[in-house]
Amino acid sequence: MKTITWSNNQVRIIDQTRLPEKLVYLNLKSLKGLWWAIRKLKVRGAPAIGIAAALGVVLGMRNSSARTFKQFRKELQTVSRYLKRARPTAVNLSWALERMELEVLAHSRQEIPYLKKFLLKEALKIIQEDRDICRRMARFGSKLIKDGDKILTHCNAGALATADYGTALGVIYQAKSEGKRIKVYADETRPVLQGARLTSWELLRHQVDVTLVCDNMAAQLMKQGMIDKILVGADRIAANGDAANKIGTYNLAVLAGFHRIPFYVVAPASSFDLRLKSGRDIPIEQRDPREVREIFGRRIAPRRVKVYNPAFDVTPHNLISAIVTEKGIFRRPYKKQCRKLK
Amino acid sequence: MKTITWSNNQVRIIDQTRLPEKLVYLNLKSLKGLWWAIRKLKVRGAPAIGIAAALGVVLGMRNSSARTFKQFRKELQTVSRYLKRARPTAVNLSWALERMELEVLAHSRQEIPYLKKFLLKEALKIIQEDRDICRRMARFGSKLIKDGDKILTHCNAGALATADYGTALGVIYQAKSEGKRIKVYADETRPVLQGARLTSWELLRHQVDVTLVCDNMAAQLMKQGMIDKILVGADRIAANGDAANKIGTYNLAVLAGFHRIPFYVVAPASSFDLRLKSGRDIPIEQRDPREVREIFGRRIAPRRVKVYNPAFDVTPHNLISAIVTEKGIFRRPYKKQCRKLK
Repeated sequence: MKTITWSNNQVRIIDQTRLPEKLVYLNLKSLKGLWWAIRKLKVRGAPAIGIAAALGVVLGMRNSSARTFKQFRKELQTVSRYLKRARPTAVNLSWALERMELEVLAHSRQEIPYLKKFLLKEALKIIQEDRDICRRMARFGSKLIKDGDKILTHCNAGALATADYGTALGVIYQAKSEGKRIKVYADETRPVLQGARLTSWELLRHQVDVTLVCDNMAAQLMKQGMIDKILVGADRIAANGDAANKIGTYNLAVLAGFHRIPFYVVAPASSFDLRLKSGRDIPIEQRDPREVREIFGRRIAPRRVKVYNPAFDVTPHNLISAIVTEKGIFRRPYKKQCRKLK
Repeated sequence: MKTITWSNNQVRIIDQTRLPEKLVYLNLKSLKGLWWAIRKLKVRGAPAIGIAAALGVVLGMRNSSARTFKQFRKELQTVSRYLKRARPTAVNLSWALERMELEVLAHSRQEIPYLKKFLLKEALKIIQEDRDICRRMARFGSKLIKDGDKILTHCNAGALATADYGTALGVIYQAKSEGKRIKVYADETRPVLQGARLTSWELLRHQVDVTLVCDNMAAQLMKQGMIDKILVGADRIAANGDAANKIGTYNLAVLAGFHRIPFYVVAPASSFDLRLKSGRDIPIEQRDPREVREIFGRRIAPRRVKVYNPAFDVTPHNLISAIVTEKGIFRRPYKKQCRKLK
């Protein structure tokens, strides 16, 4: 199972909108095709869309007819701006694009053909790094997990959200590989049902004991002592530790605080946006009302009912027990810890 | 629109599983048909299933060949036990059955044909009373509502859950009729989607300004100051004020406490079960995993994933700001207030 790879000069992704019914791979040859794959959540998850963006630059630039570096750079910026518009919240997307651009800038004396090859090399490097980062986060995170822990997770922060192992689910895979017995509860994660469709599918494939619940059942689970820890990913983390993640995450964080259950965010350094002082500055993507009114094209609500459909929410840092990164486990005050990332 | 009536010697209900696509009425002639209609949520909502149970007794007893009162009563108890098994949590069901039985007991000297007619009369009385109770609750509840209030509700506690006006939604209809401008947010209420399918449909029909949200978005709404009050119904309230209601209600109550938003339960006296000291004793119905794994027969999760699917949760009394009943607005300590109901 490879969520996103470069193969036969194309971007190869799992079409996540087809899961769990079918495991279908898509080969993307064009920048536009890749853009839509991101927009339509065929590839999703902050680290994975960072990788997708980097590979998107490769697709968008490989047929460039630029003759000078200046032209090449200008085209690159256009491609970059275009890709950035695919989804606004996960910072990994713009992080990857900025990295690609900076690396090109550092090689401004090279010939265009070299630069094209160099872009691919850099994108593949990001994929390789993501793998290492996943493993490192998992090892740090696993220290927080005890044998017998019952863990609640939200959305999909697993292999399907990264090039490898996942963020929050990576911690679970690592803990399991160390022999710890883990029981996972997966929020179905409305409206797009990443928990039902992706996380439960992925955990079953990895032989993890998983139970699916509706999002509104989490409080009841916690009240009954059925949850020891909560592990989630993040799409963007501000300098003070406020973390944007899939809608419903903030809900869980409040519940965790009330029930005194540790609430952990697992995210790579590339998900931090240190230019933002707090979560208030994180842009929140509003998505199509049809995502709520319809499920797989079947209408579940009156056509003319208004819908509010933010894709993300922001969990304030004081509700986060720790943030697991590839540089170690961060604890409050996050502002101080985040400086390590600079 | 009549949720449940007695018409042409049959029980006539709206088939709520067909909404919002189609407004279909079902005519139920047999006890068994009615039992399945309750079990399959074709008729649902605590007051409405109380009425359904009373009418179920009429259906179950009208062809009784009992010759003595003793035989008649024994048959009645069998019918009653059968109906009680349809759904365990809403106490209105057993409340209505006990009332029917007690009324019959009080007429033990009457002939069987009289008793059969009497059962129908009593069931129709329950319907009429439910109408009056809805109106009285609505008038009391409306005192809590201010012009311009933004109200969040969960599941369906409206006309579709009663013989008339609804409990929580009745308060909104009354406030609106008094000229107050109200904006309602309706939780879609997974897994059965009563909020998406029923509440938004019902509120649109009543020209109420309604916006549909997924259950996991409520916290975000509250954080942004978009909610002034929360109004929900109840399926069973213990003597200390702990209230069982649709799964996800406890979630909202915790969030309301955290965000300092008043959380109101609206329920008739028949939803109180004063034999139970606290909510711990309320039986919670566990429903078919397919309700979570499938939406309208379309699978949204792997077939073999385990599912936890409690239909209700219990909100502890200390998270409830007030309980609106037809006898007035109850405030803490509820134990003292509940004595009024004896």
